Amino acid sequence: MLNVAVIGLGYWGPNLLRNLYELHRCGRLVACDLDPAKLQKVRSRYPTVETFTDASRVFADPEIHAVLVATPVSSHFGLARQALEAGKHVFIEKPFTSSREEALELIDLAARKDRVLMVGHTFEYSPPVLKIKEIIERGDLGRIYYISASRVNLGLHQKDVSVIWDLAPHDFSCLFFWLDEEPVRISAMGRDYVQRGIPDVAFINLEFASGCIANVQVSWLAPSKLRRTTIVGSEKMLVYDDTENIEKVKIFDKGVDYRDPETFGEYHLSYRSGDVLSPRLDSYEPLRKEMEHFLDCCENGKRPKTDGHNGLRVVRALEAAEKSMREGGVVLDVDRL
Amino acid sequence: MLNVAVIGLGYWGPNLLRNLYELHRCGRLVACDLDPAKLQKVRSRYPTVETFTDASRVFADPEIHAVLVATPVSSHFGLARQALEAGKHVFIEKPFTSSREEALELIDLAARKDRVLMVGHTFEYSPPVLKIKEIIERGDLGRIYYISASRVNLGLHQKDVSVIWDLAPHDFSCLFFWLDEEPVRISAMGRDYVQRGIPDVAFINLEFASGCIANVQVSWLAPSKLRRTTIVGSEKMLVYDDTENIEKVKIFDKGVDYRDPETFGEYHLSYRSGDVLSPRLDSYEPLRKEMEHFLDCCENGKRPKTDGHNGLRVVRALEAAEKSMREGGVVLDVDRL
Amino acid sequence: MLNVAVIGLGYWGPNLLRNLYELHRCGRLVACDLDPAKLQKVRSRYPTVETFTDASRVFADPEIHAVLVATPVSSHFGLARQALEAGKHVFIEKPFTSSREEALELIDLAARKDRVLMVGHTFEYSPPVLKIKEIIERGDLGRIYYISASRVNLGLHQKDVSVIWDLAPHDFSCLFFWLDEEPVRISAMGRDYVQRGIPDVAFINLEFASGCIANVQVSWLAPSKLRRTTIVGSEKMLVYDDTENIEKVKIFDKGVDYRDPETFGEYHLSYRSGDVLSPRLDSYEPLRKEMEHFLDCCENGKRPKTDGHNGLRVVRALEAAEKSMREGGVVLDVDRL
Amino acid sequence: MLNVAVIGLGYWGPNLLRNLYELHRCGRLVACDLDPAKLQKVRSRYPTVETFTDASRVFADPEIHAVLVATPVSSHFGLARQALEAGKHVFIEKPFTSSREEALELIDLAARKDRVLMVGHTFEYSPPVLKIKEIIERGDLGRIYYISASRVNLGLHQKDVSVIWDLAPHDFSCLFFWLDEEPVRISAMGRDYVQRGIPDVAFINLEFASGCIANVQVSWLAPSKLRRTTIVGSEKMLVYDDTENIEKVKIFDKGVDYRDPETFGEYHLSYRSGDVLSPRLDSYEPLRKEMEHFLDCCENGKRPKTDGHNGLRVVRALEAAEKSMREGGVVLDVDRL
Repeated sequence: MLNVAVIGLGYWGPNLLRNLYELHRCGRLVACDLDPAKLQKVRSRYPTVETFTDASRVFADPEIHAVLVATPVSSHFGLARQALEAGKHVFIEKPFTSSREEALELIDLAARKDRVLMVGHTFEYSPPVLKIKEIIERGDLGRIYYISASRVNLGLHQKDVSVIWDLAPHDFSCLFFWLDEEPVRISAMGRDYVQRGIPDVAFINLEFASGCIANVQVSWLAPSKLRRTTIVGSEKMLVYDDTENIEKVKIFDKGVDYRDPETFGEYHLSYRSGDVLSPRLDSYEPLRKEMEHFLDCCENGKRPKTDGHNGLRVVRALEAAEKSMREGGVVLDVDRL
Repeated sequence: MLNVAVIGLGYWGPNLLRNLYELHRCGRLVACDLDPAKLQKVRSRYPTVETFTDASRVFADPEIHAVLVATPVSSHFGLARQALEAGKHVFIEKPFTSSREEALELIDLAARKDRVLMVGHTFEYSPPVLKIKEIIERGDLGRIYYISASRVNLGLHQKDVSVIWDLAPHDFSCLFFWLDEEPVRISAMGRDYVQRGIPDVAFINLEFASGCIANVQVSWLAPSKLRRTTIVGSEKMLVYDDTENIEKVKIFDKGVDYRDPETFGEYHLSYRSGDVLSPRLDSYEPLRKEMEHFLDCCENGKRPKTDGHNGLRVVRALEAAEKSMREGGVVLDVDRL
Repeated sequence: MLNVAVIGLGYWGPNLLRNLYELHRCGRLVACDLDPAKLQKVRSRYPTVETFTDASRVFADPEIHAVLVATPVSSHFGLARQALEAGKHVFIEKPFTSSREEALELIDLAARKDRVLMVGHTFEYSPPVLKIKEIIERGDLGRIYYISASRVNLGLHQKDVSVIWDLAPHDFSCLFFWLDEEPVRISAMGRDYVQRGIPDVAFINLEFASGCIANVQVSWLAPSKLRRTTIVGSEKMLVYDDTENIEKVKIFDKGVDYRDPETFGEYHLSYRSGDVLSPRLDSYEPLRKEMEHFLDCCENGKRPKTDGHNGLRVVRALEAAEKSMREGGVVLDVDRL
Repeated sequence: MLNVAVIGLGYWGPNLLRNLYELHRCGRLVACDLDPAKLQKVRSRYPTVETFTDASRVFADPEIHAVLVATPVSSHFGLARQALEAGKHVFIEKPFTSSREEALELIDLAARKDRVLMVGHTFEYSPPVLKIKEIIERGDLGRIYYISASRVNLGLHQKDVSVIWDLAPHDFSCLFFWLDEEPVRISAMGRDYVQRGIPDVAFINLEFASGCIANVQVSWLAPSKLRRTTIVGSEKMLVYDDTENIEKVKIFDKGVDYRDPETFGEYHLSYRSGDVLSPRLDSYEPLRKEMEHFLDCCENGKRPKTDGHNGLRVVRALEAAEKSMREGGVVLDVDRL
């Protein structure tokens, strides 16, 4: 059985730990955080979990096989590098790293060390996102024209990163997963209304080589929680509303057909409007699936679905969006940053 | 009593005519269209309305006091200029003109001829838009941070103008009315998926000198009709959903307060979440109000609320958005086009 | 071409007239009402329509082939009898008559005179109701267990009949049409809160011989308009929400399966939850379809879908519900009133 | 500190235990269940909780001060009686008992033993229900005309009690709490579609001496979860939708005013339609509040808000509804059962 350590027991780390605990697939489980109060809470909840305040103890422990990093993004690179160098499999929470350079270095290091490197893009393990992937791959939507996504609510303002780095990783991860491509050009407009220097609202535009475009809105300042993505294809259209309890995904048999002009006449557009279908979705906790996948990869040396390259493309897009926003909305070539 | 002519009986003109007819405030009512079939329909519906196929008959008729132009935008300028030169009051449907130059010339001409020049920004006469104006002016929302608006549905594709010129006039008119300012910088990304050369989806960003920003999405390719505007202020937030039958406007007593650091501590953000209020709205047809206002202005020589300058600022923004979209999303200074 | 008269130009009559007018299938069209002001409105709107204040002129006019009665229910019987006796085809608005005796007499009279007798249960011509009928007949829902329907909103209080006679005809007509049976037992509880003696809220229970039960709520005192019917079947479940613009009908692939006990074990229930489908509906005005059907029947001597027997079963149920309500909610046998 | 035992660790008992555990106000905590597997789960989750399989150990333990009974309703009476006779304070889950006789006996016994007897009508501790009570008591709604409530979803079919005993306790408890009265007459219609002899859908009518009436629909066979209560008053109307995340309670400033006839004219009804307000609600777990209240009562000898009489009135109504349903919907006098 694998011995596994979770570093960072702030907001998300406890969820990783809970799932690992409940899977009953690990030998030793170690929780590591600088804050003893957090570790105390862990111990009272999970008496069998070991707790360290010093991450170097994790790296030095030859019996720990895998490390999950759930700390603020600025420390991802340093902790992951040490873990990989100590020969451990590594799982890093989204966003992967603070820069593409860091991401590339970790990918390279993991390859050299022959260790698993996985990024926690949980949405790619969730029932609605997987169902949409399946629908797109089956060709039901036809060619994807454009995607519009909103991820807004009131708070929680981060103090170290902009709303782009906080919320956009989710949408970027889903979009690139569905489209199977990353954007070539990005622009973003945003503002820092509440905390100076830390934008809390941003409108991001993405262009893909396939011709698809996307608009992603992220905000910590919004009257109600929106988690709504619209995918418009040439054949059908789809709405994914993650705040819905039941009909999270709806497929609209709608479209417009272009008919070439006959003889000298004008071309003609005809609008189609058919059934609306909300497919049944599996119900499981995506994070559970993600943890299982990580353990599977560690045990069998498989490449994770959300590997370093998957994490890298999100980081590249985040970097470009943030830079565009800082520069007043200029359109940036993702490759030429 | 005023004698009034409506030129253009396509999609919107019949609504103008119906309201003028039902107001019982006009003497002669004239309908003018190139298509005799449209006039035939008018006659069978309103036996007392005169019908002309030739607009020059309208201009030449000295007893016609006022002309309403509801033709495609490319003909607005020519028809309005002739009407003004013939000494008639003029009402032009939105968007006002095809260019700022045309708009300025009409404004100038109307001033020289001392005639009323009004633009049909109907939303500025509608109960929810006026209620929101009142709420903002009362200071209930505090400082306006940002606005996000969506105006999307399936069709109807125009064949002469992009979706920006078709749908964005509504949002631009509302935004500039509420904020009492026009944008200084605009960018837009769009694509022409169905008809080559005529974009059918666009994401538009607006920046105002006050610091407010806005995102406006317009599309003829969308699974369901959205008419949703969110206004986020420093004190409260507001959602205006024009597809709702009852609660079109909702005010959320929500916000985030920034508290300066005491002693050496960190600053602190606290989130407020109070009542949600949906104010009662008057119920009348906005177009009725608009027509009454036009007749009032003609009769009393008043300046219309939606005068040429009001129409001009929308045209300037449309021009900038269209140009940015055609140039790949570059951020444009509205003043320096 | 048929010459047709509409008697009663109050709330609903003008809709009959408008549809007859726009169908262009009638020769003479006559409007008849005691109130000259109503007839004046008709003339200004439809210059070719003749207007009578005296219904006896309609009956005496040998060239009028068909009569539509859209007056208050208390006068339905008298007017329809005169019309039938004068040899005219008759269409009567819902509810058919004030009592089952009156209904039977009209059915008998129409048979003897060999004239069409049709009742205006418009819902039976509407796209969602017909789609539901089709779904049920195809067996998609399995055996129908129960139906729950709400038809409530604020106003409009009638001054001559209870809310049961005003609103329940719609639901009763739909239910009996879908189930193809009428109820055997009925009870109702109601109260007269605003106008003494005229109940404005009622809860009605219906039992059918097939085993199906139904609850119908009708009220003129409700915070928001509800037009919601839930049909629960052994295989699937269906919701019909007539206030929805798009997804009026939704079919839920949901159910519970009963498995007999194996060996000594307990029986087991398993819950199914699959896709949700909202079928495309035709879009036309039901009343247009209904008027076409009436004219077809008059021209071809066909029996209307909503004939006198169809109207009678609704009247029987209304009588029973009203009587139960007046008697404190006692359960009544519909056959033994 | 109080030593407390929870008997019954099935569906709901673990929630009681969790709250007691997290309140840190109890000395010893004991969990008691016949099923050792359930106790094993308790131990692994809460290492400090003692576990008994035999309830008599609880009663025999002189250091246990209070007992919470969360077993099937048929065993409530027996367990509670033993606990009271052993001198312990008793909390019983809803519904209180299987019959009014049992309820009266427990009330009497608790009084004689001077022990706290509390019934777990959790809704009476929940923010929306308390807010509605406050609104009603302030007179905002005016006189309460009628209440309509739906509590339906797919499953979970109980095997020992009808849907009335399973779901209606919630609505009855809320209604009687808000109205501060219990019904005088009850009727109910229901059917047993899935399990023979165990009705899974019921429509219940309640009449109160004040003139208020209510309709409560409960079902285990429904396409979607509804938890919707409408309260119509003479001044305002209110909707409580417990499936809403944000606007659970909405107050509609709507009503109809009756004006007496002036001179010889007819009386006149005028409809009011004003703002819609969704008041901010506290956010806490109702069960936490309930457990705190029980501990407070035990410690200070206070009478619980939801005491035995509170539980009794719900039992009386359940008995009447069940009996009416079994007898075909006959209207029953609650006092004369």
